Amino acid sequence: MRTVWIAGAGMTRIGRRPEPLQALMAEAAHAALAMAGHPEPDAIVVAAMNPEEFVGDGNFASNVASYMGFAEVPAVRIETATSSGAAAFYAGFAQVAAGLARTVLVVGGEKMTHLPTPRVSELIGRSIDPYERSYGATMPALAGLVTRALMARHGVTERELAQVSVKNHAHGARNPFAHFQHPVTLEEVLESRVVADPLRLLHCCPISDGAAAVVLTAERGPVRVAGVGQGTDTLALRHRRRLTSFRATQAAARAAFAMAGFGPERVDFAEVHDAFAPFELIALEDLGLVPPGKAGRATLDGETALDGRLPVNPSGGLKARGHPLAATGIAQIVECVWQLTGRAQGRQLQGRVALAHSIGGLATNNWVTLLEAA
Amino acid sequence: MRTVWIAGAGMTRIGRRPEPLQALMAEAAHAALAMAGHPEPDAIVVAAMNPEEFVGDGNFASNVASYMGFAEVPAVRIETATSSGAAAFYAGFAQVAAGLARTVLVVGGEKMTHLPTPRVSELIGRSIDPYERSYGATMPALAGLVTRALMARHGVTERELAQVSVKNHAHGARNPFAHFQHPVTLEEVLESRVVADPLRLLHCCPISDGAAAVVLTAERGPVRVAGVGQGTDTLALRHRRRLTSFRATQAAARAAFAMAGFGPERVDFAEVHDAFAPFELIALEDLGLVPPGKAGRATLDGETALDGRLPVNPSGGLKARGHPLAATGIAQIVECVWQLTGRAQGRQLQGRVALAHSIGGLATNNWVTLLEAA
Repeated sequence: MRTVWIAGAGMTRIGRRPEPLQALMAEAAHAALAMAGHPEPDAIVVAAMNPEEFVGDGNFASNVASYMGFAEVPAVRIETATSSGAAAFYAGFAQVAAGLARTVLVVGGEKMTHLPTPRVSELIGRSIDPYERSYGATMPALAGLVTRALMARHGVTERELAQVSVKNHAHGARNPFAHFQHPVTLEEVLESRVVADPLRLLHCCPISDGAAAVVLTAERGPVRVAGVGQGTDTLALRHRRRLTSFRATQAAARAAFAMAGFGPERVDFAEVHDAFAPFELIALEDLGLVPPGKAGRATLDGETALDGRLPVNPSGGLKARGHPLAATGIAQIVECVWQLTGRAQGRQLQGRVALAHSIGGLATNNWVTLLEAA
Repeated sequence: MRTVWIAGAGMTRIGRRPEPLQALMAEAAHAALAMAGHPEPDAIVVAAMNPEEFVGDGNFASNVASYMGFAEVPAVRIETATSSGAAAFYAGFAQVAAGLARTVLVVGGEKMTHLPTPRVSELIGRSIDPYERSYGATMPALAGLVTRALMARHGVTERELAQVSVKNHAHGARNPFAHFQHPVTLEEVLESRVVADPLRLLHCCPISDGAAAVVLTAERGPVRVAGVGQGTDTLALRHRRRLTSFRATQAAARAAFAMAGFGPERVDFAEVHDAFAPFELIALEDLGLVPPGKAGRATLDGETALDGRLPVNPSGGLKARGHPLAATGIAQIVECVWQLTGRAQGRQLQGRVALAHSIGGLATNNWVTLLEAA
């Protein structure tokens, strides 16, 4: 298997964007290609969760490739719900690793803010098991259930949960690409309105538009893809053995670390999927970055802050950078590449090994990607 | 790059099916796994063009994997409009070729017959360039335009076009998995109602439900994947240099033959994308299977019939086997595998090399797969 490198990484500012989705994806793609110094890739992998219903266009790989001026470059679309970006990264990785392509552009994006929130919620809710959905379950409702279990069984406190949001907003305030670039206080989080008990508004990521892209190559580049792992679990939450950890994350981490040939102790910083604040705590433990039961405490103690032992979500995470669904898994990798190559102005970390963690659906289809500075 | 083999192939009967899409896909998958003798794959690639709108379910890779009892097997979904099945095959191929998985289940399906035809037409129409769509262009309308150009510039006759349908219905009549298992006469085709002038009902494939699956493996199996190629073109028909051949097919064929290390003269039979009868004629010439301008004549002369020099669409093709969108690219490969391994009861061909050709959208994202008996 060939070694795969990242030659370029680019993204749009995340937020409410008036441009068409195709324009956002082109902006991210051309930024990544410019950094890579490759005018045209051999192949394109497009991530979009549901362009048919969010923006009314199908045949979306060809649509985006044509829009970018790459109509004659082979393009496919990959989808694994909210982790589609990470899945597309893996599909591009496999093409380069197999020797089927030398340079692959991986680009993901979503546009949702033009739709009413209940409609966005309905469309995202299609990721949920149909039977559970038939009882009115939404993503925040199921996440609320998970949070309750976490508090009851592991003693996670409201302050620990809130501190995840406080930290990630503080990071986002330093990221010019973030949806939210303002800090929030512990009190603001604890007093924000309840969305799905015990989850409050400021525990939840926003609805965002945006796009992100990377260029993968077989030629030596500034960042090496050390490992990629996927893990899956039952669609139905009720079929799982426990609610307080995600098998899909654990399996993805095992696979990624096995490919990399090193363990979590080598990770210098991480971008994790904090669509809801408790998911960051669960991820830190499932990934082996923090001992079981210690993630809340570590967060309160500042271990995961920009100046902590293990900075987590330096970009601001899904909470503050924003969560344009299929862009997110790639945006996490863009942040890691920027950090590893000294491009993270205002929030620059030291470190050589980065981890990106993406969740698809309610932790049904998760990914872990390990990147190492060359 | 590792050699990739096909160990198993299975499909459902195509047609109006009352079962949920997930059940159709499980039926096809378990048939392919049974032939392969593998109880559980390492990874799953799911092809579905638009499950969100056709059947109301998202997160579809996890949904299908969970339904099949493979919740813990990593699964992704691939989409390239009507060629999604072929694209999924390629994604699975890349995983095995790279050494990332040893056994990959590739399964595609679609369910549409429960929806009103205008709604199906609208959903499939999302594959068309938005500007052309805004003028009311539908797939049959654009195909009608292509057919007119073919008749005007290449002298293709109505009898030649009709003979494609007559031949493919004759083949479908021998295929117990086909949507239509009855023959049609030249007169019936020529007298069927006009859908989009000059295309008539019996020039067009039906709306079908169904699923198909193959098992790819790194271990020696009965059929070797000799080559896979993808070709793309502008989304907009008006941006193309000509209407009477498809660049996307030509590019896919070049790539597939280059990988295989042989040319079209080695192909013994082919499954091609005859969503509209003229597309079969265009494909035969673009693939290099018939000299330019000769496909109509070759068809009338019986060269592409089951007992001809180069049997084309022994399954009945999209016209008679049916066209359950994302199942189709895989169903073509299933037919090739069955033919190459002596499983095509009632329509068994001789031959060692088969070609499958799939079109995504209006020839924006096409694939050619070359298979060789071991």
